[in-house]
Amino acid sequence: MATERAYLDWNATAPLSEAARSAMLSAYDLPGNASSVHAEGRAARAALGKARQQIAALAGAEPQHVTLTSGATEAANLVLTPDFKMGRSPLRFGKLYVSSIEHPAVREGGRFSSGQIAEIPVMPSGVVDLSALERLLAEHDGAAGLPMVAVMLVNNETGVIQPIAEVAKLVRGQGGLLVVDAVQAAGRLPLDIARLDADFIIISSHKIGGPKGVGALIARGEVMMPHALIRGGGQEKGHRSGTENFPGIVGFGAAADEALHDLSARNQRIAALRDELETGMFEAAPDVIIHGRNVDRVANTCFFTLPGLKSETGQIAFDLEGVALSAGSACSSGKVGQSHVLAAMGCDPDMGALRISLGPTSQAGDIEKALSAFRRIAMRRKTAGAAA
Amino acid sequence: MATERAYLDWNATAPLSEAARSAMLSAYDLPGNASSVHAEGRAARAALGKARQQIAALAGAEPQHVTLTSGATEAANLVLTPDFKMGRSPLRFGKLYVSSIEHPAVREGGRFSSGQIAEIPVMPSGVVDLSALERLLAEHDGAAGLPMVAVMLVNNETGVIQPIAEVAKLVRGQGGLLVVDAVQAAGRLPLDIARLDADFIIISSHKIGGPKGVGALIARGEVMMPHALIRGGGQEKGHRSGTENFPGIVGFGAAADEALHDLSARNQRIAALRDELETGMFEAAPDVIIHGRNVDRVANTCFFTLPGLKSETGQIAFDLEGVALSAGSACSSGKVGQSHVLAAMGCDPDMGALRISLGPTSQAGDIEKALSAFRRIAMRRKTAGAAA
Repeated sequence: MATERAYLDWNATAPLSEAARSAMLSAYDLPGNASSVHAEGRAARAALGKARQQIAALAGAEPQHVTLTSGATEAANLVLTPDFKMGRSPLRFGKLYVSSIEHPAVREGGRFSSGQIAEIPVMPSGVVDLSALERLLAEHDGAAGLPMVAVMLVNNETGVIQPIAEVAKLVRGQGGLLVVDAVQAAGRLPLDIARLDADFIIISSHKIGGPKGVGALIARGEVMMPHALIRGGGQEKGHRSGTENFPGIVGFGAAADEALHDLSARNQRIAALRDELETGMFEAAPDVIIHGRNVDRVANTCFFTLPGLKSETGQIAFDLEGVALSAGSACSSGKVGQSHVLAAMGCDPDMGALRISLGPTSQAGDIEKALSAFRRIAMRRKTAGAAA
Repeated sequence: MATERAYLDWNATAPLSEAARSAMLSAYDLPGNASSVHAEGRAARAALGKARQQIAALAGAEPQHVTLTSGATEAANLVLTPDFKMGRSPLRFGKLYVSSIEHPAVREGGRFSSGQIAEIPVMPSGVVDLSALERLLAEHDGAAGLPMVAVMLVNNETGVIQPIAEVAKLVRGQGGLLVVDAVQAAGRLPLDIARLDADFIIISSHKIGGPKGVGALIARGEVMMPHALIRGGGQEKGHRSGTENFPGIVGFGAAADEALHDLSARNQRIAALRDELETGMFEAAPDVIIHGRNVDRVANTCFFTLPGLKSETGQIAFDLEGVALSAGSACSSGKVGQSHVLAAMGCDPDMGALRISLGPTSQAGDIEKALSAFRRIAMRRKTAGAAA
C-alpha cells in the first residue's frame, strides 16, 4: 500500500520513522521496569534518561523540566487547570483564554469549567487577533485568579504560524501564564521555550515520526507546576504517575533527535514540493483557494478549498485515487473551530476544505500522484457544474 | 543479559512477548491515524477493533465496554471519581472505600478528595477484612452520594487472591459500585467481569506481556460511566480523548489473546517452579517466612521475609548474584500499605520482604539461579549474625 499510495496526511500522524523503529526494537530487548532497582530496571532508566534529553533538546529545554505523558492531549489536560503549585504554595488561575483555532484537546480547557474559558478570535488571515487578546486580558478579573493563555504555535489545519512572541508580551504584561501547543511546530520550526517566552509547551511523539501514545509537557522552570492529573506511584517527580512507556519514550527520543537535524535543508526540500503542488493546483483550477498563503506558514501544509467540491466528497475522491489527505471539518461543523477561521476568510460555509500535509519522506512522486488526482477531481467538478 | 541473568520480577513488568512484538511490528507498517477517514486510517481502525475484541475477551466483557487508556494508573484515575453519568443524568458517589493493600494508583483515590476516601483493613492473612467492610458500608452516609468500593483481585506483593464475590455481595447490598483492579490477576486467573460481579475492572498491558503505555478500563455495561479524565478529540466514545496508541493497543490485544490460552497448563508449570523454589528456600533457611502461603495465592508469586536480611540489602545482593527481584516496600515505609499487611502478619517492621515473581517463560534454570543465590545470601546473613 505504501508504495502505491501517496500518504499526504502527516499533520494527522507521521509514519513511524526508521530511527524511532530501530531505537524501539533495541529497547524491546530490555525487560525491566524503569522504576525498578535491579540491573534490568537501571538499564531501562538509563535509556529513558537519554530519551528525555533528546526530547528536551528538541524544545531547547532542560531534561528535568520534561514531564512525559501518553500524548499531547493528556499534556494539555494536565497543564490546563486552575490549580497549580508555586513551590509549596497554591497558585490559582481564574480564567483560561484559548484561541478559536486551538486543537480540541486545548479548546476543551482541561480542568477549567466551561464558564472559566474565553475564546480569543483570529483574523481573516488565520492569525490570532492580538488586539482582541489585549482587550480580553485588560478586562481580566483577577479576583478569581491569574489569567492563563493557550495559543498554538502552528495551526494543524492551515499550517499558519502564530505570533507567540507578541502573545507572550501581552501575557507577561498581565502576569499570566502562557501555554503553547507546539505539536505541529516540532520538527518544522526551530523550537526554543525561552525564545518563545512560553511557560509550557506541548509536543507529541507521533507527529514527528515517533510512536503514538507518547507526548510531553515541557516547562520552562520547575517552580510552577499544575496539580497532577494522573496520580499513583509518583513517577515523573509526582507530576504524572504510571509505569513509564519505556520503548515508546525511547522511540519518541530518537524521533526528536532526528527532527532536530537538517531542519533547514528538510524544510527547503518540503517547501519545494509544496510549491510544485500549489503551482500545479492553480494551473489546473485557477479558482482554488489556498488558505493562509499570504501569511507565515510551515513548509509542509497546504489547506485548500476547491469551489464546488464538498470536503467529504473530496476526501473520498482523493482516497479512491490513492491519495490520503484530510478533510478539514472546516466551515460546516463546529468541530475544532476551523470553521471560524475559514468563515472569516470568506469561505462558503457549505464548502469546506481539504488538507494535504507532507513529511520528511514525501517524494516528488507523491506530489505527482496528488496533482493528477487533483486534476481529475477538478475536471469532474467542472463537468458536474456544467451539467447542473 | 537475558541469558545470563534470571528475571524474576514479572509482577513489576513482564518482558514483551513474542506474540505482542510481532503483532506490533506488523502494525508499525500501517501509517495511518485510526481516527482518519482514508484507507490508511481505516486499516488502523480495523486492527484496533480486533485488539479491542481480544482485550474484552480476556475479561469476559463486550468490546464496546472497553475504554483504552495509557495504562492501569490512568484507568484507576478515570474511574475513581465522585462524578459519573447514568445515561444523561448525573450520578454522584460520596465516598470511596479502598482496601489497605491497594496499589498506589487506587489508594490515591483518583479524583476523590482525601476526606472522601476510607480504608478497608486486611486480616493477618493478607485477605481483605469482609466484616470490616460490612461495618464501613453500614455506616455509609448516603447524603453525599453512593458508596464506591475498590478492592484488587490479586495483590501485587503477596499474590493473595481477594474474595471479590463476597465483596460484591456487600457492595450490592448498599447499592454501591465495585471497581476491581485485576492488573495482577489477568493472565493468571480466569477473568469474567459478570462472574466477579464487578462494575469495572482495570487491566494493564505490560503485566501480561504486552507493551507498556497501554491499559484498559472495562465496564460491565455502558449506562454508568465516569466523567472523562482526558478530554479533547472525543476518542473512545468521549470517555478518553487522544490519538489511539495504535501499535501499542495491537500489542496489548495479542498479549491478551495469548494470556487466555493454556492458562491452566501454564499455571501448573509455574506453580511447580514456585513450589520447587519455596521448598528449596525452606531447606536452606527453615526460618524463612513466606507471606500468604496459607491462603489462596496466584501461582507465580513468592513474597518472603528472611529474618536478618533487610529488603534493600537483599535486593542488591540478589541483583549482584544475577537475579532480578523486587523489594516489597514492606514494613519499613508507608508506601503501598503492604507494611500494614506484613505488620498484621507479625513481621518485624524493620525487616521487610522480597518478592520473586515468575512468568510464562520462566525456566527451571531461573529457579536454580535464584535458589543458589538464596543459599549464599542466607549463609552470609547467618555468618554476619554470628560475627555480630
